[in-house]
Amino acid sequence: MNEIKIFSPATVANVSCGFDVLGFCLDSIGDEMLVRKVDKKGVYITKIEGYKLPFEADKNVAGVSALALIEEAKPDCGFEIEIYKHIKPGSGIGSSSASASGSVFAINELLGKPFNKTQLTYFAMQGEKLASKSEHADNVAPGIFGGFTLVKSIKPLEVLEIPTPKELYATIIHPQIEIKTAESRAILPKEIPLKDAIKQWANVGSLIHALHTSNYELISRSLQDVIVEPHRSKLIPLYNEIKLASINAGALGCGISGSGPSIFTLSKGIEIAKKVESAMKNIYSETNIVFETYVSKINTEGIRII
Amino acid sequence: MNEIKIFSPATVANVSCGFDVLGFCLDSIGDEMLVRKVDKKGVYITKIEGYKLPFEADKNVAGVSALALIEEAKPDCGFEIEIYKHIKPGSGIGSSSASASGSVFAINELLGKPFNKTQLTYFAMQGEKLASKSEHADNVAPGIFGGFTLVKSIKPLEVLEIPTPKELYATIIHPQIEIKTAESRAILPKEIPLKDAIKQWANVGSLIHALHTSNYELISRSLQDVIVEPHRSKLIPLYNEIKLASINAGALGCGISGSGPSIFTLSKGIEIAKKVESAMKNIYSETNIVFETYVSKINTEGIRII
Repeated sequence: MNEIKIFSPATVANVSCGFDVLGFCLDSIGDEMLVRKVDKKGVYITKIEGYKLPFEADKNVAGVSALALIEEAKPDCGFEIEIYKHIKPGSGIGSSSASASGSVFAINELLGKPFNKTQLTYFAMQGEKLASKSEHADNVAPGIFGGFTLVKSIKPLEVLEIPTPKELYATIIHPQIEIKTAESRAILPKEIPLKDAIKQWANVGSLIHALHTSNYELISRSLQDVIVEPHRSKLIPLYNEIKLASINAGALGCGISGSGPSIFTLSKGIEIAKKVESAMKNIYSETNIVFETYVSKINTEGIRII
Repeated sequence: MNEIKIFSPATVANVSCGFDVLGFCLDSIGDEMLVRKVDKKGVYITKIEGYKLPFEADKNVAGVSALALIEEAKPDCGFEIEIYKHIKPGSGIGSSSASASGSVFAINELLGKPFNKTQLTYFAMQGEKLASKSEHADNVAPGIFGGFTLVKSIKPLEVLEIPTPKELYATIIHPQIEIKTAESRAILPKEIPLKDAIKQWANVGSLIHALHTSNYELISRSLQDVIVEPHRSKLIPLYNEIKLASINAGALGCGISGSGPSIFTLSKGIEIAKKVESAMKNIYSETNIVFETYVSKINTEGIRII
């Protein structure tokens, strides 16, 4: 195999209570990438469609993650990468992560799979670092593993695959305003009350239990964020209105996707997920803000060859 | 049925990362209680053996929890309670909790089980409050439900039953020094670094996942407490030495039981649990501190009729 085309899905990181550790994988939106072996060693980004991004491999997240892999694998060839970007950078649904993960997934396939998913996550994190200025895996892990993931630790990197209840669907609204990850991090307090932290880890434990037992009502009661949402939601216009309308439309829960501005909800069944989408659209239609919405099953496969 | 005798087991609260929310139930140590219906309405503590505790119902945790139940049930009779106390008060393995839970469990049986386990936990918490000056359920819940429990929230009270891997055993050492719960709470910071809180909730999520999947190695890697142990371990003589010796003897993890001074470990299989007990004994035998040790399977039944 000398050439491979892949679909690298968007992902939702944080998932309310699971700030910095939980994430899940979407299905209805993602980038496409074409990667081919070439004789000349190195990484060459030869095409980028959709959004304007740097072509220099060491300035592009897909290039940086690919270089990290290559440094370890030392292959006798190089790679050309074509990126067909559908996830808008800065959307909060793992745009940079999809690029960073996609290139290493594809190169690993072309090399005969020398690396496992945790190793690929590690390489992808190196690309992510370029975009977010901090080392985190809560977007790359669900893209590479699929389904729900819990990043237990970064050093050493350990990713846990959490079961995905069959009827779970996500609805996303992406208001096209810009929130920089760095800015979104800066708004967070460095210290938090112990009593709030206890609530948060009770909800994390409870959410993991609910995912294991496909207990949708408990998923709903666990999707609470007492630490981050109160701060970051201020950066997203009509956040509280979207949340209220989504819950009224039947969503199990609603939270900020990654560092925003996208907002995610989870619902039981595609019918409710679509109702939630309508409710979200109604709110934003009355503003001047350009927005996109997506309804997606939870993608339990992750990145796939197309 | 006019009279019932029950075994109300000791419990371990907090369980390293799960401060204030997780707990599990022991089997080899607990109180015995005899409760009988009497014509005269009210709660009468008629016998206390083992340790000196107040006989007035409204000053005794078993009495207070019983009164809370009775206020709700409004039975046409009263109850006499005999308490055969084996768990030393202030040990950190749920002594007051065993009394508080035992009386409500027994009265509920005598009344034909009008209340479910969550309601019994609520009544028992009212007794616990008398002892610890704060409302918490992380000892009463595992006593009443058995196995591992996660107290998702106090208001409204919600207790989750987490699966118990079959080969899990606990070893406990109780150094007979006094640490007051209130003192042990006062030593904790009111605010904690967000980055530490993230580590803690990653471990909580990971421990719940590990219990669901009977993944003993992951249980081991999850039994970490970066928030409370650094402060409270200072109150327990030779804590670090006990921890090191236990891990070297094969324990999966080691932490402070409740607010101490007892120390718990979890091990895979009774053989290792016994080796851990020997290792613990070796450390404390070289001191002047009086101590007890216990090896116990995880009691998945909770309080039982004997």
